[in-house]
Amino acid sequence: MPVGNTQDGPELAVDGLEIAVIEAGIRYPDRKDLVLFRLEAGTTVSGLFTKNRFCAAPVHVAKANLSTGNIRALVINTGNANAGTGSQGMGDAQLSCELVAAQLGYSADQVLPYSTGVIGETMPMERFAAGVQQITTESFGASWLQAATGIMTTDTVPKYAGRTLAIAGGEITIAGISKGAGMIKPNMATMLGFVATDARIAQTHLDELASSLIEPSFNRITVDGDTSTNDAAMLIATGASGVELAPGQPGWHEFKQQLGEVFLFLAQAIVRDAEGATKFVTVEVTSTQTSDEARLVAYAVAESPLVKTALYASDPNWGRILAAVGRAGISDLDTEQVSIYLNELEIVRNGAVSPDYTEEAGQAVMDLSEITISISLGRGDNSDTVYTCDFSHDYVSINADYRS
Amino acid sequence: MPVGNTQDGPELAVDGLEIAVIEAGIRYPDRKDLVLFRLEAGTTVSGLFTKNRFCAAPVHVAKANLSTGNIRALVINTGNANAGTGSQGMGDAQLSCELVAAQLGYSADQVLPYSTGVIGETMPMERFAAGVQQITTESFGASWLQAATGIMTTDTVPKYAGRTLAIAGGEITIAGISKGAGMIKPNMATMLGFVATDARIAQTHLDELASSLIEPSFNRITVDGDTSTNDAAMLIATGASGVELAPGQPGWHEFKQQLGEVFLFLAQAIVRDAEGATKFVTVEVTSTQTSDEARLVAYAVAESPLVKTALYASDPNWGRILAAVGRAGISDLDTEQVSIYLNELEIVRNGAVSPDYTEEAGQAVMDLSEITISISLGRGDNSDTVYTCDFSHDYVSINADYRS
Repeated sequence: MPVGNTQDGPELAVDGLEIAVIEAGIRYPDRKDLVLFRLEAGTTVSGLFTKNRFCAAPVHVAKANLSTGNIRALVINTGNANAGTGSQGMGDAQLSCELVAAQLGYSADQVLPYSTGVIGETMPMERFAAGVQQITTESFGASWLQAATGIMTTDTVPKYAGRTLAIAGGEITIAGISKGAGMIKPNMATMLGFVATDARIAQTHLDELASSLIEPSFNRITVDGDTSTNDAAMLIATGASGVELAPGQPGWHEFKQQLGEVFLFLAQAIVRDAEGATKFVTVEVTSTQTSDEARLVAYAVAESPLVKTALYASDPNWGRILAAVGRAGISDLDTEQVSIYLNELEIVRNGAVSPDYTEEAGQAVMDLSEITISISLGRGDNSDTVYTCDFSHDYVSINADYRS
Repeated sequence: MPVGNTQDGPELAVDGLEIAVIEAGIRYPDRKDLVLFRLEAGTTVSGLFTKNRFCAAPVHVAKANLSTGNIRALVINTGNANAGTGSQGMGDAQLSCELVAAQLGYSADQVLPYSTGVIGETMPMERFAAGVQQITTESFGASWLQAATGIMTTDTVPKYAGRTLAIAGGEITIAGISKGAGMIKPNMATMLGFVATDARIAQTHLDELASSLIEPSFNRITVDGDTSTNDAAMLIATGASGVELAPGQPGWHEFKQQLGEVFLFLAQAIVRDAEGATKFVTVEVTSTQTSDEARLVAYAVAESPLVKTALYASDPNWGRILAAVGRAGISDLDTEQVSIYLNELEIVRNGAVSPDYTEEAGQAVMDLSEITISISLGRGDNSDTVYTCDFSHDYVSINADYRS
């Protein structure tokens, strides 16, 4: 059961983008595991990919193809990550694009491939090819929610957000999906996100939107600190609404804000549905000298197994938070300037337990399923925020049994 | 049950050092929780302490007193860490020394205090004072193994190593103990280590021994990546054997080697008895440009929850190891130069699954309780090694229930 909502807004269609979803049997039977997005000519596409040096073959291919522009299709399979597969994997990823392109009448570099699943096994290309044969002859009438279901691995629920905006004299739709539940940490995480709009946005502006909105959303979530080989967060603008948006022009500011909310919702949905999660936790670090410093502390707390197991136990063992702050790597930290809150409750003041703190009050906050840990370092004007979850028996079960 | 041995060698006494152990009821009844070491005049003492910025009050006091030299007693309590306790805690730590000093006729700065247990609660000084009253009138006839038991918290077994050496025309004894099971990561970890010898060693040489031998032992273990507020590893030389040792002199080399083995054994014993551990894992990274780089990769693998849960499941899901190497932060890593072994089994060659690898062979290694993960980056002549364990249901249980 996810913690809170993982779907937001009405289910919408984005003009200029069509979806097909099928069961290709990549790894498991009776499971939707192949998704195809077909894009209208003129669509612009941008995105960010994992920084893992062992990034998967499809990541290499997607990055290369993305740089040529003129993308017409995205193909996503689950069940196999095609990572750690060497030159064989590169050939398979390339072949994936060729297969889709041949069926739809594009060139191979107009197709972006995405894979998620087990690392280190070669792709079952026969089943993949048969899947492509089937999916390209589908009606392309699938919904975003069906696509969200089709990209799930250990996810328990599909993740979707959609909204319409009346701006710039027209109506614009934004819809997006995400997946991921473990091996989640920025840069990115076995995490896929696809957000599309029917606004028309020039490539340069789309790139700027993607990097500025993905950074504080998909790049600020952590489940276990493990960065996947296959992460990608994509932003697609089909232009089919006929409404062109650009910085400084009418509607841009509102559009960017709403789009940012969609990215943040989809990123947070991953944490809400994280493997074994029973709590959704925001770690907010303020009054730091730099935002890097804030991020360092936020991740030290968000990824501490001791903090996470205390959250799981609803144990107000705030000493573990304090210890994580202390080991975060700020060598000149003046601990007497540090204060920590759980939601509205002050637990640490001037580096020691708050004089007003009571165990009962701490317990009352820890019993909640959504908790914000706010840490002020008292040494500057910067800040950053990271989203995470607790660490439960189910996390161990899920990850100890994942391949069996 | 620990993985392998946590006690090594005969139980010895170190001349010039006496031990007392009692139940002081600091937190729990019927539990040995107060240990006192009394040292002969002329004993030299050295050690390393946690680098956590929220280091506990007793760490501050111990560091200050250590710098004055002429240490005569070490007092160690479990049940309360006296960390995150502000000025009250500093006063209590100082008072601890004064209480011991008054009873034994020393000055307060000749006493080193150590605390381990829950963070953020003030010390029950009334019980501590009564404990000091009692322990200082004890026979001081306790053994090292009793001391090892007296400093346990979530440890399941006492950890001890002892050996005698016939060198430099005399016989020298080395004995030591350690504790710690969770919140374990170098610099240091809720980890205490006390190693003593009856050799006579000048302060400057003892300091050099402590830093050079603690670095590759107590500073290379990780259970959960959480660095404690209270860690300390101490080296004591009473001189009571009458045998003086110094660099370049007869016996020094052998002594240093044997002492290093004792430190390493005691450090590894902590990992063997780590909370919930079912496997003892050595992560060895070679062919790196720098040793820092090797350490970075070793910790990324050793602390990856996904690697650790795969180890727990005895699942040869080596893709998780590969993914951890890839995200370790070496931005110019050439993945095609990377090879990975599980014990003697090659699993990754040139950055992809080894052509000789079979799932059966991988399974056979993963079924063992002691596993070495060897990673070669193929980019230099440096290396480093870290010791860790798997991540089990019991880790979550222990840490979700610790305070209850």
